[in-house]
Amino acid sequence: MSGIWGKQLELSLFGESHGDAIGITINGLPPGFEIDMEEVQFEMARRAPGSSDLTTPRKEKDLPEILSGFLDGKTTGAPLTAIIRNTNTRSKDYSLLKDVMRPGQADYPGRMRYKGHNDHRGSGHFSGRITAPIVFAGAICQQWLKQKGVTVSSHIQSIGHIEDQRFADQKEVTHEQAEAFKKDQLPLFDGEKKEAIRDLILEAKEEGDSVGGVVETFVLGIPAGYGNPFFDSVESTLAHLVFSVPAIKGIEFGTGFDITRMKGSEANDEYYYDENGQVKTRSNNNGGIIGGITYGMPIVFRSAVKPPASIKKKQQTINVREGKAAELEVEGRHDPCIVPRVLPVLEAVTAIALTDLILGGN
Amino acid sequence: MSGIWGKQLELSLFGESHGDAIGITINGLPPGFEIDMEEVQFEMARRAPGSSDLTTPRKEKDLPEILSGFLDGKTTGAPLTAIIRNTNTRSKDYSLLKDVMRPGQADYPGRMRYKGHNDHRGSGHFSGRITAPIVFAGAICQQWLKQKGVTVSSHIQSIGHIEDQRFADQKEVTHEQAEAFKKDQLPLFDGEKKEAIRDLILEAKEEGDSVGGVVETFVLGIPAGYGNPFFDSVESTLAHLVFSVPAIKGIEFGTGFDITRMKGSEANDEYYYDENGQVKTRSNNNGGIIGGITYGMPIVFRSAVKPPASIKKKQQTINVREGKAAELEVEGRHDPCIVPRVLPVLEAVTAIALTDLILGGN
Amino acid sequence: MSGIWGKQLELSLFGESHGDAIGITINGLPPGFEIDMEEVQFEMARRAPGSSDLTTPRKEKDLPEILSGFLDGKTTGAPLTAIIRNTNTRSKDYSLLKDVMRPGQADYPGRMRYKGHNDHRGSGHFSGRITAPIVFAGAICQQWLKQKGVTVSSHIQSIGHIEDQRFADQKEVTHEQAEAFKKDQLPLFDGEKKEAIRDLILEAKEEGDSVGGVVETFVLGIPAGYGNPFFDSVESTLAHLVFSVPAIKGIEFGTGFDITRMKGSEANDEYYYDENGQVKTRSNNNGGIIGGITYGMPIVFRSAVKPPASIKKKQQTINVREGKAAELEVEGRHDPCIVPRVLPVLEAVTAIALTDLILGGN
Amino acid sequence: MSGIWGKQLELSLFGESHGDAIGITINGLPPGFEIDMEEVQFEMARRAPGSSDLTTPRKEKDLPEILSGFLDGKTTGAPLTAIIRNTNTRSKDYSLLKDVMRPGQADYPGRMRYKGHNDHRGSGHFSGRITAPIVFAGAICQQWLKQKGVTVSSHIQSIGHIEDQRFADQKEVTHEQAEAFKKDQLPLFDGEKKEAIRDLILEAKEEGDSVGGVVETFVLGIPAGYGNPFFDSVESTLAHLVFSVPAIKGIEFGTGFDITRMKGSEANDEYYYDENGQVKTRSNNNGGIIGGITYGMPIVFRSAVKPPASIKKKQQTINVREGKAAELEVEGRHDPCIVPRVLPVLEAVTAIALTDLILGGN
Repeated sequence: MSGIWGKQLELSLFGESHGDAIGITINGLPPGFEIDMEEVQFEMARRAPGSSDLTTPRKEKDLPEILSGFLDGKTTGAPLTAIIRNTNTRSKDYSLLKDVMRPGQADYPGRMRYKGHNDHRGSGHFSGRITAPIVFAGAICQQWLKQKGVTVSSHIQSIGHIEDQRFADQKEVTHEQAEAFKKDQLPLFDGEKKEAIRDLILEAKEEGDSVGGVVETFVLGIPAGYGNPFFDSVESTLAHLVFSVPAIKGIEFGTGFDITRMKGSEANDEYYYDENGQVKTRSNNNGGIIGGITYGMPIVFRSAVKPPASIKKKQQTINVREGKAAELEVEGRHDPCIVPRVLPVLEAVTAIALTDLILGGN
Repeated sequence: MSGIWGKQLELSLFGESHGDAIGITINGLPPGFEIDMEEVQFEMARRAPGSSDLTTPRKEKDLPEILSGFLDGKTTGAPLTAIIRNTNTRSKDYSLLKDVMRPGQADYPGRMRYKGHNDHRGSGHFSGRITAPIVFAGAICQQWLKQKGVTVSSHIQSIGHIEDQRFADQKEVTHEQAEAFKKDQLPLFDGEKKEAIRDLILEAKEEGDSVGGVVETFVLGIPAGYGNPFFDSVESTLAHLVFSVPAIKGIEFGTGFDITRMKGSEANDEYYYDENGQVKTRSNNNGGIIGGITYGMPIVFRSAVKPPASIKKKQQTINVREGKAAELEVEGRHDPCIVPRVLPVLEAVTAIALTDLILGGN
Repeated sequence: MSGIWGKQLELSLFGESHGDAIGITINGLPPGFEIDMEEVQFEMARRAPGSSDLTTPRKEKDLPEILSGFLDGKTTGAPLTAIIRNTNTRSKDYSLLKDVMRPGQADYPGRMRYKGHNDHRGSGHFSGRITAPIVFAGAICQQWLKQKGVTVSSHIQSIGHIEDQRFADQKEVTHEQAEAFKKDQLPLFDGEKKEAIRDLILEAKEEGDSVGGVVETFVLGIPAGYGNPFFDSVESTLAHLVFSVPAIKGIEFGTGFDITRMKGSEANDEYYYDENGQVKTRSNNNGGIIGGITYGMPIVFRSAVKPPASIKKKQQTINVREGKAAELEVEGRHDPCIVPRVLPVLEAVTAIALTDLILGGN
Repeated sequence: MSGIWGKQLELSLFGESHGDAIGITINGLPPGFEIDMEEVQFEMARRAPGSSDLTTPRKEKDLPEILSGFLDGKTTGAPLTAIIRNTNTRSKDYSLLKDVMRPGQADYPGRMRYKGHNDHRGSGHFSGRITAPIVFAGAICQQWLKQKGVTVSSHIQSIGHIEDQRFADQKEVTHEQAEAFKKDQLPLFDGEKKEAIRDLILEAKEEGDSVGGVVETFVLGIPAGYGNPFFDSVESTLAHLVFSVPAIKGIEFGTGFDITRMKGSEANDEYYYDENGQVKTRSNNNGGIIGGITYGMPIVFRSAVKPPASIKKKQQTINVREGKAAELEVEGRHDPCIVPRVLPVLEAVTAIALTDLILGGN
C-alpha cells in the first residue's frame, strides 16, 4: 500500500507529474495553529524547478491551493488538503517513452508493479515533482517545531568528489546559521568550495550528464526522550520517509559507516553535565539517537543522492513492446544535479517525522 | 508507539532482557503453512550468545515455545505467538547501573522516554536479546520465501578496517552459496580475510574493547514489481526494520554512498534481455530497487554495525541520581563484536519485510 | 485521529460544507480497473440534495473532478483523488450560529474537540455533505464488486412508525430487484406503504419538524470465508464505517435485537446442501456473518437513522460566548427526512468495507 | 488481518480455547502506572466460567501471568504481555466435531476462511474464552480511567422478554451504584426482576436450550470533546470493539432504534447550564455522543447478545467431509445464558476504546 504515512500526524499523498494536480492531505495538525503562508511559499520555492541555471528550466509557480481544514489563517483540526495544479506539462515530450524503458528511472519497475497501467508521462506518480506537497507539509511542521525551539536544516556534504566539512567538525552551529543555510542554494560550512561545486554541476550539464552528492541534515533543539525502541525508532521513522524521496540510496546517522572502523571506546559518546546542568555528550557519534530515542544532542544524518537518471547521453536499454534492445536519447528538461532541490525535501520529511513523534508524546 | 509492525504480516514484539520471557506474535501468516522447526532452531542458534569464543559467554538455549496459531506442525491462520523464557539472567550484575548512565547504551534516552520506569536490568526492552523473537519470525518467513524461490543471505562486508569483496564484485552468487554462508560464523567472499578478522575481534576482546563492521545482505530470486513509491518503498520498508535492530547506524542500497561520486551515465543500470528473454541490467548500482520497486535483479544493501557499547574499559559519564559526573567500569558479559550475531537478524528482518510485501500483493 | 480508514483499500477523506472543496483519496484500487463514470454519477445523484420535494432545496451538481490515479478511463494503481467543489454555499445563513449551539448537531462537541477552531459554517467537517466523496468511492467499489457477482442494495425498513417488510420475509431477492431499488427514492418491499411514508415526510416538513427511520442494507452473492475473528470481524468493519455516517444511532445484523428474545434452538441457522451442492442455512438470523466471517448467505443489517436535527421549530439551548441560555430558530434549508439520501451512503460504506476485505484476501 | 487493534493504545490478542495459552500484548500504556492486580483478578473472575449455577461448569482460575512491561508493580512503558494457561481442556469432547458443522458457531465460516487449518477444538481462536485477555486489558484501562474520574459499568437490560428499566429512566446513577453493579452477577435497576430472570435461565438450562439478552453499558464522568468525525467516531470505535465480542448482533446508542420513531423536535437534546455552570442536556437521546464526539453527558449504549449457539438439543446440519446432511447433539459444557459473563467484557472493551481516545488526546 502506498500514499499514507504516519500515526499522530497522518499524510495522504497523491498526484502525477502530468496529471491535473498533485496534493496532500494532512491529518492531525493541532487546531488553531496559525500558518505563515509566506514561509511555506519560501520552502516550496527552494524545491521548485527553474530557480537558477543549476536546475531544470521547467518553471512552475507551485502555488498550493488549500481546500480544507484551514479557516481565517488557522488550522481547524479537520484534515487539511492542499493541491498544486500541474500547468507546465509538455506531455508530448514523453509520448515516445511508453515502451522504451529509461535506465535508472521507475519506468520498468513501475510497469511491472502496475501491470502497464501506471501513468508513464514524466514518470507519473514516481516523479520527483510529487515531493512538492511533501515540502508543503514539511513547511507547516517546521513552523510548528520552531515554536518548540526545534530547527531543521541541512547543508551540502558533497557533490561528486568535492566534500564540505561535517556538522561534527563545527564548534557550534546556531539556529541563525541553520536558518541562513535555507536561503543559500549551495549551503556549505566551507564556503570556499562553492565555486568548484558550481563548476562541477555546470560541466555535467554541458556534457548532457549528471552528478550526485550527499546531504547532511541536522536538527537543533530537540530534547531527550523522543522516539521508541522496536519498531519505531527515530532512525526507522526518519529513514522510512527519507527513502520515500526519489534518488536516495543511503542514509547514515552520526558518524555512520565510519563508526564501524572505530573501537567501542572511541565510539561511545560520554555524558557530562554542562555549566547549566544540562546533560550533554562530548562526542555525538550516535547522531543524537541511541536505542531509537533522542538524548538531547543534535540529530545528524547524511543521505546519499544519486546523480539524476535523466541524461542526454545515448543509452542502451529495451523496448518492452517490441521485446528487444533499444537505444535511447532522452530529450526534454533535465536537472544536472538534484542535490540543491533535495535539501528542502529532506528537511521537510525530517520535520514531518519529528512532528509525528512529538505530537504522539513519543 | 512501539512493538507493532507490518501491514499484511503484522508483528507484535515484547519482552525485556531480564524479565520472565520475551516473545512475538505474528499475524497474517497463511493458514496451513508447514514450519520446519529445526530450521527455525538453526537460525536462532546463529544469533544466540555463547556459540564461540567470539561472542558473549551468556548461554541460553533460546528454545521458543509456541503458544498459539500452530497445530499439527502447521499454521492455523490465527495469530502465532512464541515466547522464549529468560533463564540465565544474573540481574545483580546490573543493579548498580540504574543511576550511572552507560555511554552508547539506551540507559539515558530510555530513562528520559519512560520517566525512569523502564526496566534497566540488562538494557531491558532495549537489549539486543529482543531480536531473538525477530529471528524466530524471520526464520518462518525465510521458509515461506524459499518456496517462492527467494533466498535471503548475507556476508561480513568488513570488520573494522578489514574489508571483504562486495556482492557486486562476484561473477555470480548461487542460492547454494547463499545457503552455505548461513553455516559460517564469518561468511566472506574472500575467505583469506577470515584469519585477520578473527584476530581483530579477539584482540579487541583482550583489550576489553570492541569493534564494529558492515554487513552486506542480498536477496536472490526476487521478481520485478514488488514495492511502492511514496511512502512504502522497498528501501523504506527494509530501512524501517533494519534501524529497529540495535547498533545499526547506516544503510545503503546497491552502490550506496559511492553512487554519489558517479556520473549519471555511469550510475544508470542499462537494461537488456538475456538469452532466456529475461529482463536484466548490466550493472546493479540501484541494488535491485528503483522507484521503491524491485526490477528483478538481486536486492543488495549494506548495514553499518557500531562497535558494542558494552566495554570493560573505564569511561566517564554521569550519575543521574546524584546529578554529577561519574566513572564507570562495566562488569559482566560482553560481545567484543556483534557483527556475526547480527547477520541472522538482518536476514530475518529482510525476510519479514519481503513477506509482508509479497503477501500484500505489492 | 480521523480522516483515514482501511487496510488494503485506504481512504483519506477531507472537506467542509462551506470550504472550497470536499474530496477523497482512494489508495489500493487495483490498476487497470475501468470506471463507469455514469454509474458513479448516478450513485452520487441519489445522495445529492434537491432531487425532490422530500429533500433540502440546496442544489449542487456534485460533479467529482478526478485529479490523480486515473488515466484513459482506468485506474493507474496510484492514489486516486477526486474533489467536489462547493458552489452553492450561502455562508451568511450560518454566521449567527457560531455562539448558539444547535441541539442535536455537532456544534458543541466539535467546539470542545477543536477548541473553538472548527469550521462552524454549515456544520463544517461534520456536515452530511462530507458523505458525497464516500458515495463516490463506494460507487467505484460497487462496480468492482459487481464483477465478482456481489450486489449491495438497501430498502427503507421504516419511516417513523410505518414499517416495510424485512429482507428475511422475502422468498427471494434477486440481483435485478436489488438494482431496481437503487432507482427508487423510496424503495420498499411492500410498495403500498409508499404513499403513507411520503405523506409522513411532507407533514413533518410542513410542521418545520423532521422524521427518522431505519434502513435495511443487504449484500447478495458474497461467498463464505471473508472476514476475521478478533478484531476485524465483518460486523466490526461495517459498523465502524456505518457509524461514520452522520445521524446513525444503531446497527443490528440479521435478526438483531430480536434474536435476544429467541431460544438458541430457534436462533441457530441450520446448514444444508442445496440441490447444487451449495452450503446454505434454512434461516439467516445471523445476517450472513458468524465468528466475524461470512458463511455464504446474504449479509443483512439495519441502521437506525435519527430525525434530522435541523428543524425550524423554536428550541432552547445555550450561547457559549455569553455563557447563558438562548432560544434558537434555525433558518435555512432543511431535510425533513434524511433516510432516502442515506440509502446510497450506507450502500457505499458497505461496498467499501467488503472491497477492503476481499482485496486483502480476507 | 486480525489480532491487532488500536492507535495510541495498541492491543495484540492471541490464543485458542484448547491451545497452550491465550494472551494479549498491550502497547502504549503510560510508564509508571501502578496496577492493582486484585482488581484485575476481580474483573477476570466476573467473566470466568464456573462461578455459579447459571454458567458453564468449566472451571479455570484464569490467573494471568505477566511476562513483560511490568516491574515492581508498575508499567515500564514497554509492551505489556500477559498470558493465561489453558489447563482444563478436555479436547476429546470436541474431536468428533471437525467435520460436523455446529449451527450458529464459527465452525463453517472459520473452516472456509482458513482453508480447514483453523484449530477446531472448542472453537479454537473463535472461542469466547479469548475474551479473557481482553478483560485483563480492560481492567487495567478501567483503573486508569478511574483516576480521571471516569467509571464504566453496565446492567442487564433484558433476558429474553424480561426487561429492566433503562439508564435513561433513572433520576441519577452514581459512581457508587455503577461500582456496585460490578459485584452483582445479575445487575438490574429493577431488582424485582432478578428472580424471574434467574428462573428463565435455569429453565433454558434444563431444556438443554439457551437464552439471550441485552446489555446496557454506561460511562460516567466522561468530559466533552473526545472523539472524531469521519472515520473514528466514538460510536465507530466502540462498535468496532463490541462487535469483536462473540455473540453480539446489534448495538444502539442513546435512544437507539427508538429515536427513529421520534420527531426531530423530540429527539434533539436541548442544552442548558446547570447550577455549577456546567453544560448539560435535558434529555440524552444521543447517548453522550454527537458528531462522533462526547458532549459531557454519560455515554450509553445497548448491545444485543444472542442465545449461546451451544445447546444440547438435536440439530440438523452438514458433515463437510462426507458432503452430506448430518444430525448433531453437542455434548460437553454449555452456558445456558452468556449475558452475565458478557457484562465485564463489554465494560472492558468500552474502557479500552476510551483509554485509546483519551491517551491520543482525542
